[in-house]
Amino acid sequence: MSKKIGVAIVGSTGYGGVELIRLLASHPLAEVTSVISSSSAGTPITEGYPHLTGIHEELLDDVDAATIKSKAEVVFLATPPAVASKLAPELLEAGLKVIDLSGDFRLKDPALYEAWYKKPAADEQYLKQAVFGLAEIYGDNVKGASFISNPGCYPTATLLGLIPAVKEGFIDPSTIIIDAKSGVSGAGRGASLGTHYSELNENFKAYKVNQHQHIPEIEMVLSDAAGAPVVTTFTTHLVPMTRGIMSTMYASVKGERSQSDFIELYKSFYAGRPFVRIRPEGQWPATKEVWGSNYCDIGFALDKRTNRITIVSVIDNLVKGAAGQAIQNLNLMMGWEETLGLQFVPVYP
Amino acid sequence: MSKKIGVAIVGSTGYGGVELIRLLASHPLAEVTSVISSSSAGTPITEGYPHLTGIHEELLDDVDAATIKSKAEVVFLATPPAVASKLAPELLEAGLKVIDLSGDFRLKDPALYEAWYKKPAADEQYLKQAVFGLAEIYGDNVKGASFISNPGCYPTATLLGLIPAVKEGFIDPSTIIIDAKSGVSGAGRGASLGTHYSELNENFKAYKVNQHQHIPEIEMVLSDAAGAPVVTTFTTHLVPMTRGIMSTMYASVKGERSQSDFIELYKSFYAGRPFVRIRPEGQWPATKEVWGSNYCDIGFALDKRTNRITIVSVIDNLVKGAAGQAIQNLNLMMGWEETLGLQFVPVYP
Amino acid sequence: MSKKIGVAIVGSTGYGGVELIRLLASHPLAEVTSVISSSSAGTPITEGYPHLTGIHEELLDDVDAATIKSKAEVVFLATPPAVASKLAPELLEAGLKVIDLSGDFRLKDPALYEAWYKKPAADEQYLKQAVFGLAEIYGDNVKGASFISNPGCYPTATLLGLIPAVKEGFIDPSTIIIDAKSGVSGAGRGASLGTHYSELNENFKAYKVNQHQHIPEIEMVLSDAAGAPVVTTFTTHLVPMTRGIMSTMYASVKGERSQSDFIELYKSFYAGRPFVRIRPEGQWPATKEVWGSNYCDIGFALDKRTNRITIVSVIDNLVKGAAGQAIQNLNLMMGWEETLGLQFVPVYP
Amino acid sequence: MSKKIGVAIVGSTGYGGVELIRLLASHPLAEVTSVISSSSAGTPITEGYPHLTGIHEELLDDVDAATIKSKAEVVFLATPPAVASKLAPELLEAGLKVIDLSGDFRLKDPALYEAWYKKPAADEQYLKQAVFGLAEIYGDNVKGASFISNPGCYPTATLLGLIPAVKEGFIDPSTIIIDAKSGVSGAGRGASLGTHYSELNENFKAYKVNQHQHIPEIEMVLSDAAGAPVVTTFTTHLVPMTRGIMSTMYASVKGERSQSDFIELYKSFYAGRPFVRIRPEGQWPATKEVWGSNYCDIGFALDKRTNRITIVSVIDNLVKGAAGQAIQNLNLMMGWEETLGLQFVPVYP
Repeated sequence: MSKKIGVAIVGSTGYGGVELIRLLASHPLAEVTSVISSSSAGTPITEGYPHLTGIHEELLDDVDAATIKSKAEVVFLATPPAVASKLAPELLEAGLKVIDLSGDFRLKDPALYEAWYKKPAADEQYLKQAVFGLAEIYGDNVKGASFISNPGCYPTATLLGLIPAVKEGFIDPSTIIIDAKSGVSGAGRGASLGTHYSELNENFKAYKVNQHQHIPEIEMVLSDAAGAPVVTTFTTHLVPMTRGIMSTMYASVKGERSQSDFIELYKSFYAGRPFVRIRPEGQWPATKEVWGSNYCDIGFALDKRTNRITIVSVIDNLVKGAAGQAIQNLNLMMGWEETLGLQFVPVYP
Repeated sequence: MSKKIGVAIVGSTGYGGVELIRLLASHPLAEVTSVISSSSAGTPITEGYPHLTGIHEELLDDVDAATIKSKAEVVFLATPPAVASKLAPELLEAGLKVIDLSGDFRLKDPALYEAWYKKPAADEQYLKQAVFGLAEIYGDNVKGASFISNPGCYPTATLLGLIPAVKEGFIDPSTIIIDAKSGVSGAGRGASLGTHYSELNENFKAYKVNQHQHIPEIEMVLSDAAGAPVVTTFTTHLVPMTRGIMSTMYASVKGERSQSDFIELYKSFYAGRPFVRIRPEGQWPATKEVWGSNYCDIGFALDKRTNRITIVSVIDNLVKGAAGQAIQNLNLMMGWEETLGLQFVPVYP
Repeated sequence: MSKKIGVAIVGSTGYGGVELIRLLASHPLAEVTSVISSSSAGTPITEGYPHLTGIHEELLDDVDAATIKSKAEVVFLATPPAVASKLAPELLEAGLKVIDLSGDFRLKDPALYEAWYKKPAADEQYLKQAVFGLAEIYGDNVKGASFISNPGCYPTATLLGLIPAVKEGFIDPSTIIIDAKSGVSGAGRGASLGTHYSELNENFKAYKVNQHQHIPEIEMVLSDAAGAPVVTTFTTHLVPMTRGIMSTMYASVKGERSQSDFIELYKSFYAGRPFVRIRPEGQWPATKEVWGSNYCDIGFALDKRTNRITIVSVIDNLVKGAAGQAIQNLNLMMGWEETLGLQFVPVYP
Repeated sequence: MSKKIGVAIVGSTGYGGVELIRLLASHPLAEVTSVISSSSAGTPITEGYPHLTGIHEELLDDVDAATIKSKAEVVFLATPPAVASKLAPELLEAGLKVIDLSGDFRLKDPALYEAWYKKPAADEQYLKQAVFGLAEIYGDNVKGASFISNPGCYPTATLLGLIPAVKEGFIDPSTIIIDAKSGVSGAGRGASLGTHYSELNENFKAYKVNQHQHIPEIEMVLSDAAGAPVVTTFTTHLVPMTRGIMSTMYASVKGERSQSDFIELYKSFYAGRPFVRIRPEGQWPATKEVWGSNYCDIGFALDKRTNRITIVSVIDNLVKGAAGQAIQNLNLMMGWEETLGLQFVPVYP
């Protein structure tokens, strides 16, 4: 049997952490050797997650860099805001590779972080070091890096849907409007009125309109793609379902383009990237069609009457929007095949 | 006991028809005297709808103008496309008042109907006669009329959310983008893969992008409000829930306006109209907050960075988007208090 | 206009309280004159319940017997366990009529309360005074009473489904097994992992098997009906929906009975009771068929192979299982028509 | 790389067929070489199932024994009732191994099949040949067999929950009552009012009470375990979710047994069977805890007051209740490790 590398997960009792455990269980070259939760250390993870009975029976570890180092080579951080900013430097100093799933190292400008997250930013030295792991776009930077900042869920669906058109000048970036919708698991496992079943079931709601902390992340990357500052309108909604994100995006088309021009551009842009699937004309992806998998599916509708393009992009927020892309980054970082441990067929129905 | 007028419902076995029965059960001046279904005539309605046990036990009638005339003064048509276009003239000739919930008489231009509905349009004489019953906008025309065309569900949520801003020049009509979401009951009771539980549950999907037959209806009324042709971008999505529509609408603001300017404009525009509720700053309505009721709730977010306004409008698609507004039109038509039989508190949770 | 009596609701920010507000809004002889919440006094109820915008704008009152007395004649208590036990005596002393929706006064034996609720029981004097308001069974006792203990949600569905058969000796009470299922709103508005959307959606779970505090309530009343002690097996499950309870009940039939014997027995037992609907042979009620209404629907299946009867009983847990039955008791208590303010057609779909 | 055997799936456009495709995609020793649908032959499976884009792009084949033989060694039949009864003999004659997921070969008594399925039974010779593949119970018979009849979904959850107690005389088989609940995917992909989203969402309903065709299958196997005829009471309910079955089972305990006696019995009975997980005292499994996986989880509650045991058993109806168990049978049949291709962690949340 091939030797697997050890992987530690900090924040194992959140949905991101537990999804990493699920996905890594079938990874051929990595295995989870430590699941860590500062709040529940010493108890078995099956207490809070009985679905792991017989699969992961180990007790939860406490956070300690030396102990982690003795068990693992890579650490995933699936922690709340402003935790990784303190933890990552320590783990990196200890010689560990770090993949951070939180938002702490995504924004390169600390002032921007503090304005949108209302928390102290991470040290600039580490902000610079962290590679933004939007795998299909910055995968080359990820290769061989030791510190990755995994993108947010909304930005992943949105950016994969917009970047080719922005980069190739097919759309006017100043006209971009993003109407995003997410399942409830994106809000995490914390209990509040905002995650209460009776409040969300048979309900559709908008929240944080123009105020979501993923806005600067989206604009940072779009500006990079456009080569000039991009400002967007971005609305988030909560859908009565557990998993799935759809970004419906609108922009004015530059010049004369047909719908199939867009399809061809995206197919060629994402050629060789197995996790982005471009849909044929007249077909728009539904969130269930990527459920449980690492795919991002994209479809188009061009309206000749207004010369606007509508781009529909879907992901599973816990997979491609979090744990799955983090493993994709692990694979790239280690120089492995990008798809290792990620070839799940979407669960349908 | 006060004398009630008799009301007949054609298409009683659809969701629109059965919702009329529910709402009219508490109407003080009208009562359902005939429930009609050409496909199920002679059987009790409780066969298909056991929830009406002990409430409506009458057998379903067949469609016959003379019989209807003997039982009722007003007829609601809750029929599939291209049925009312044939039926309404006959009922009107028989001296009945008609409120049509289908799309057959909404578009004044028969060519437009045929282009979007792919069916033969109604006779132009009757198209002209039919008053478009968006109650808060055209209520004065409804008063005393004998033939009302009840608006579509998406247009109701959308138009109530846009008209004040368009009419008063607060927004640039050429920039309007409408991202609409609906519960599944909007698709009716017909069984298909498109209404199959296992296909829709835990799923969010876009459909008929730029192609929905409600687009010309929305543009017809917006053009009337703007005093010039308006073309929009309109996307529809299916939400895994039964009832509720949200229209999230985007437009560029004309001149310098604050968020509270919008709130004040809408409050004053809808003053005295009990079914439109304008939300305070920072609060956006959720579909559950109008569930089962005739309310349309509207909230705003102005983004200073882009000078775009985001308008969020919600209704219950079967009430304000269909049966409820039809009864509101009945009330206006008969010269009654607008709210009769409609003072339901939203069902929450 | 007829003079309405004033009604106060203590615990207005819970689901029971807010459902009382919804139902009483259309009551012809009672009106809510004070909504009370010790935790949120001084704030508007619309802050937590925006669906009441324009309907109930009053600020929440604090709990004070004298103030309540100045505003109301009857008080509904929709409070957590062990609150009403202290509050009700004070309100009764102040000359108010009290309808308690909590479990504090249902069990006549204080030791039983303390064993199952793990809280101190109410004073025995008041336990004796409180009339158990299972309206179809003890309605005569309710008439003219001033202190009612409203039954629990599971007991209401279960007891209405079992009492006729137990009382008339159609079934052997020692064989009764009750498999009950409830929507999530039964757990109240408190946020916890047990009410978290992502944990409950697409999930069906058993809880408190053999341990639910409604067991002694069910057995107390069944023993009364049987004229001898009855012990039952009772399991509760959580269904991924907001409203609705189904009790599926099993018992061995005594003697030779046909399915229609059961139907006839129940029809005759509940003759003149408008809120119990007995289904014809081969039809079992679904929870949605009573949704939002005060009905309890009951259906039967007799298995000749085992000579066991299966009885299916459904209610809306927040209406017939709480606020609706409380208003039914108000009506009986005041000598009014039992159905006042309760003639809602179930909301379907 | 090890050579994989070819596998064909007949009925690939149903949920059972498409789940086989999902699960077999990660099987190390088998691969799907033909997906067959008589109704859609010649079209790509991605037309009806876009989630398979880029994964399974082959055109659907027609049913033809010779062609199948040229492509595959084993055939899975995921066909409607009374199709496999005709098809299986032909495929077996052609020298193929057959695993039938339909009910056509489960009941050994043709008269019983015809009474419950209302269709002509299969040829008795083949009924005798078909091994009933309840893997944990009849696994030894499956080894080396060439024709397997895969158990029904309800029987799998129910029988795994009852057999140890029946076989070891812990419970009185004449007292068994089974209250079963299923997600909607069990009804297949056919569109009807019974699978309509708006009819099932926010609804819980009983159906086919005492009449479900899985009853004789359950009783056949329980009788085998008891060594004497067993007759049961069996009720089925529909839960508003896509996947998952729970059987809540009740029986009188024989003699003096504690709850931990049951737990120990089951642990020892299923020792070495990786897909059955016995829960500790006070913990009952929820359907989500096995979602997407091949596990069957079982928990217990013993009520000393009535000396009845309540047994709660859960599975994913499309995995352990259909496609997963079929692959488990493939593994056993071929002499492979039982868990090959089935080590999915349940998807949570």
